Amino acid sequence: MRSVDIIIKKRNGGELSTAEIEFFVQGFTVGDIPDYQAAALAMAIYFQGMNAPETVALTLAMAHSGKQLDLSDIAPVVADKHSTGGVGDKTTMVVTPLVAATGLPIAKMSGRGLGYFGGTVDKLETIPGFHAALSDEQFREAFRKVGLVVSGQSSELAPADGKFYALRDVTGTVESIPLIAASIMSKKIAAGANCIVLDVKHGKGAFMKSLEDAVQLAETMAAIGRGAGRKVRAVLSSMEQPLGFAVGNSLEVREAVETLQGHGPADLLELAYILGSQLIVMSGRAENEQEARQQMQQVLQSGAAFTKLKQFVANQGGDTAVLDDPRLIALAPYREELNAPESGYIAAMDAETIGIAAYTLGAGRKVKTDNIDPTVGFILHKKVGEWVDKGQSLLEIHASSPEKAAEVREYLLTAYTYSKNPVAPPPLIAKII
Amino acid sequence: MRSVDIIIKKRNGGELSTAEIEFFVQGFTVGDIPDYQAAALAMAIYFQGMNAPETVALTLAMAHSGKQLDLSDIAPVVADKHSTGGVGDKTTMVVTPLVAATGLPIAKMSGRGLGYFGGTVDKLETIPGFHAALSDEQFREAFRKVGLVVSGQSSELAPADGKFYALRDVTGTVESIPLIAASIMSKKIAAGANCIVLDVKHGKGAFMKSLEDAVQLAETMAAIGRGAGRKVRAVLSSMEQPLGFAVGNSLEVREAVETLQGHGPADLLELAYILGSQLIVMSGRAENEQEARQQMQQVLQSGAAFTKLKQFVANQGGDTAVLDDPRLIALAPYREELNAPESGYIAAMDAETIGIAAYTLGAGRKVKTDNIDPTVGFILHKKVGEWVDKGQSLLEIHASSPEKAAEVREYLLTAYTYSKNPVAPPPLIAKII
Repeated sequence: MRSVDIIIKKRNGGELSTAEIEFFVQGFTVGDIPDYQAAALAMAIYFQGMNAPETVALTLAMAHSGKQLDLSDIAPVVADKHSTGGVGDKTTMVVTPLVAATGLPIAKMSGRGLGYFGGTVDKLETIPGFHAALSDEQFREAFRKVGLVVSGQSSELAPADGKFYALRDVTGTVESIPLIAASIMSKKIAAGANCIVLDVKHGKGAFMKSLEDAVQLAETMAAIGRGAGRKVRAVLSSMEQPLGFAVGNSLEVREAVETLQGHGPADLLELAYILGSQLIVMSGRAENEQEARQQMQQVLQSGAAFTKLKQFVANQGGDTAVLDDPRLIALAPYREELNAPESGYIAAMDAETIGIAAYTLGAGRKVKTDNIDPTVGFILHKKVGEWVDKGQSLLEIHASSPEKAAEVREYLLTAYTYSKNPVAPPPLIAKII
Repeated sequence: MRSVDIIIKKRNGGELSTAEIEFFVQGFTVGDIPDYQAAALAMAIYFQGMNAPETVALTLAMAHSGKQLDLSDIAPVVADKHSTGGVGDKTTMVVTPLVAATGLPIAKMSGRGLGYFGGTVDKLETIPGFHAALSDEQFREAFRKVGLVVSGQSSELAPADGKFYALRDVTGTVESIPLIAASIMSKKIAAGANCIVLDVKHGKGAFMKSLEDAVQLAETMAAIGRGAGRKVRAVLSSMEQPLGFAVGNSLEVREAVETLQGHGPADLLELAYILGSQLIVMSGRAENEQEARQQMQQVLQSGAAFTKLKQFVANQGGDTAVLDDPRLIALAPYREELNAPESGYIAAMDAETIGIAAYTLGAGRKVKTDNIDPTVGFILHKKVGEWVDKGQSLLEIHASSPEKAAEVREYLLTAYTYSKNPVAPPPLIAKII
């Protein structure tokens, strides 16, 4: 078998066999197949696509390229949740304690954010003392003890994916649905969960701009997971406007904590209930979503979910004082309001523009080694469908200096459009697969 | 400017600017842009193509990536000839002495063959003592002294092309018309010729199987050459069946010598006249093709063309005794006839099959370091349109052993199809551009 023949076969629109895909992934992982051949294959896949059996084979080959975590000796059912990422998306910090508090244990590995803002791990690390770099044994022990663990991605899991993703990032081959799906699912499968809920976002602030692409990605990932013997559900959620009111790393932690304390934004809590109920139903711990939701509502009201959050944070070294009193979370030194230039109903607020503005303030990173400023971001005061008077505040800017805030003011205003007539907010959930 | 953005622009079907192409080629040549990005760009170009200005810019960027030969101090007009390659194609050895003998000097750099057989340099090196590895100064001196020089490709000329071609070869990105055209023309332009004739072959034994693709390649190369201020004509010639009767390195040298001695195959001589007359007319040394052909016929009949061949070979160290008596050229130790299994007119003889059979005998190389057996190959006795009786010889196999000959016998027979009705041979020339 020659790697160049595999490239040519895909280039010509052929279907690669499982043996060919395994040969290529194994060869690439150990360095027998050079980066330039993998880059050429990735570009050929970008143009020619991959069908379901090919995508499953690619995912499994990458999942099997390194260690695979087996948590079945600790819990018969292990849940995991993944989001394709969006502006203000702090859902993991809300849904995982909710679900874990109902008795369904969650083991999650999460990537660091690349792009407009940090990922879940970056957000959690704004809690003083919290550490997400766990060894496999620490990960297992935290899972056993608390029933909830979130760690950074282990480089020992699916190393082929790590290597391939780094290559795709610099060769213009990121935007391929089978490659995205295989990348996400290879890590999920290697991490050992058997019930997986996927939050696949669409809209201006999401990686997938169109619902159609998001559905395709969700269906591909669900097919891969099922092909690998896992239970998978995918929720298609909207990212036209930011989720909740807080945008920025520590501001989002504060909002997540407040949500578990019973006074969070309705859209965030609703999305957490929908994602969590998928897991609880898949696990067999509830007959239907209504019952699952009641379980979560109960642990929220009783404070059990908040207690679970504190146990989880404490177990990974975090200072729970900031959870008990979120006002202790450090704020950015400079804050100012951004006022509406006209009156009207908010017709749209472009999540991508708001994300880029947060990135400009320092909330995100372009390359892995960039530092994130945890404190910067925005507190939104108005969302789509709400009325705003001219001169009333749209949002509060949290910046490191007046100069940084000035950099984003005008740009932020371009995110907003207004209507004289009432506007319905975009539906939060488009579809569940 | 970021190389990944250039890849993405081409991937999305955009037109690259000259500045972007120069940035990429220069960066790749010096190693600032890694192989994997060049491989991804090559695959994107395979799918999205390049328009004429992009292809000219790519060619010039590669031509300017190293040294450029200037022969204008030696001759005001310098001719060059290039063939896209075919089975039995020994035309360079015939046409260059014919043209040079009429007074138009020729300076040609030729690649070594990769594929079914050797290239012109490999064939010439079967002449004892002949050496094709000339320094630039030796190349200039030979050109000045004889008015005809053929050397191996200098690695100092168009190094970007050398590096890019090696990469394309292992990444499934060879079969792209703009990339093929840019590769060929970058070397021609860097080598300093101002009149260039291109023999672009089509048919079963050619790289371009269809006339349509060959025309597109020819037009692309002609446009590049003209864009670079060179005179260019392209002859679309047929490679459905082998050219002439000899296939194999030293067998082809013998046939070329015999042709210059006045008794060569009609198709080979005709193609040489057509290619040569394009050069002579472009150079302004003849009013029209008819007049140019008469000049060549005269130097053939007078022996001046054969004398030019001898001067050229002697000047590059070759033993001219084998030219005076081609029977001195070593033959393969084992020879046997391949007989027709049925009677009929030869309807087709698949040049590719015959080429692969010659390669199997050892006439070609797969990688640059493979050795070629100069003696092996075939002498064809029948060509398309001729009648053959059952049991009559189709060709003579020249092999290193009876076992090697046996390896190709059955396969060779699959090249032939027969007809009970008369068959017209395929037209030698389809078009001149």
